[in-house]
Amino acid sequence: MSTQRIDGHISQRFDEEMEGIVSDLLAMGELVTEQTESALFAFIRGDVALAQDVISKDTRINELELEIDDHCIQILARRQPAAGDLRAVVAIMKAIKDLERIGDQAKRIARIAVKLADADERYQKQYGEFELIGSHVISMLQNTLQAFREMDADKALAAALQDKSIDSDYEAILRQNMTYMMEDPRNITRIVEMTWVGRAIERIGDHARNVCEYTIYLVQGLDVRHKDDDQLQAIVQSRPKR
Amino acid sequence: MSTQRIDGHISQRFDEEMEGIVSDLLAMGELVTEQTESALFAFIRGDVALAQDVISKDTRINELELEIDDHCIQILARRQPAAGDLRAVVAIMKAIKDLERIGDQAKRIARIAVKLADADERYQKQYGEFELIGSHVISMLQNTLQAFREMDADKALAAALQDKSIDSDYEAILRQNMTYMMEDPRNITRIVEMTWVGRAIERIGDHARNVCEYTIYLVQGLDVRHKDDDQLQAIVQSRPKR
Repeated sequence: MSTQRIDGHISQRFDEEMEGIVSDLLAMGELVTEQTESALFAFIRGDVALAQDVISKDTRINELELEIDDHCIQILARRQPAAGDLRAVVAIMKAIKDLERIGDQAKRIARIAVKLADADERYQKQYGEFELIGSHVISMLQNTLQAFREMDADKALAAALQDKSIDSDYEAILRQNMTYMMEDPRNITRIVEMTWVGRAIERIGDHARNVCEYTIYLVQGLDVRHKDDDQLQAIVQSRPKR
Repeated sequence: MSTQRIDGHISQRFDEEMEGIVSDLLAMGELVTEQTESALFAFIRGDVALAQDVISKDTRINELELEIDDHCIQILARRQPAAGDLRAVVAIMKAIKDLERIGDQAKRIARIAVKLADADERYQKQYGEFELIGSHVISMLQNTLQAFREMDADKALAAALQDKSIDSDYEAILRQNMTYMMEDPRNITRIVEMTWVGRAIERIGDHARNVCEYTIYLVQGLDVRHKDDDQLQAIVQSRPKR
């Protein structure tokens, strides 16, 4: 990771510290993936105990964010990394913010799961759509983390591009929900809550995409924020492989 | 700003560069405040031209984020700041992400303004609620920037606490919208869009609160993320004044 450094001793210590931070980030990423999966399962199955477990575990995600952030600031202060090393620390500081926000969205879904678990009526068809978008977002999160673990920009690109299918799943949920509301105005409160779940999943996809962008920045030194899918693809694929 | 540094020459250059970054952040903050104000005005008045102006200006906010971020990374690489200086650079890198997201929410409101401008029916009572939450969020944004400009932790605390009234304005809009939908299911699509506007404003309040937290971190060295209002108040006010 630290090809730019000439002082082997400092470099080795830096690498060791960075390895620790990278593995903490991956652990945090796995935790938010689990949280997302559990929150969705709790929502679909009406499992209040599982939803409450998700809500209580969110504190741990917040702590992890602060711990990793603190390690990054310490490494900036003590090791004064340059070039690619500095980029790695900065990318990690940004990525953990997005992971923390994924955790927030999972908690949001879990809270709605608790609220709706007691409702008399279950919308089986609607829950099927949530299973679909849920499987897409979990797959995206897993691929995002794998790309980061392997420091692979092409995999990060592929994971980033998965966001599009989540956006279109969400649009479908939104359209469907409008129809449900018009057909059955008595259930508007419930359907609005279900719409919030769709929105939370859509946001998780956006944050995962951000993590992919930071992975590309870390690996290739390319700032690919605020690009659309075509631009992102063109930029990543035009670079020589490392 | 750089009390910890002993080398006067480096310190002076650092201070000059930091002043540039601080003034860029403030300019970015003023731009997102204007964007929020214009987007809300366009939404309430049905002003399509103004809404389109907001949408087109969002690119400039994204550019500002990348420019300021790049300056921060350069300053980390070249000046290798320590202690309070390092904290300042890190706080600014985080704060601009929240400003950029405020810009995104303003654009979101502007897009809905365009979509709803042609609608036959106007919900005058409802727009009154948006004027209220709008005036609260603009006041919060102005106070957030003033606290940052003056590096004043007490003002940042006061601005952060304004988020609560925005949350309760939003809850009121949400409850009201549920009633409107049940009373008049034909207008559900429209009212759902109006709910998104409320949600966007609520998110702007959250991001402004984050900027206040980073200001407190910058000024007092206190990490006050993930605290509730009472904890935040207790922490900030228990510190000796600087």
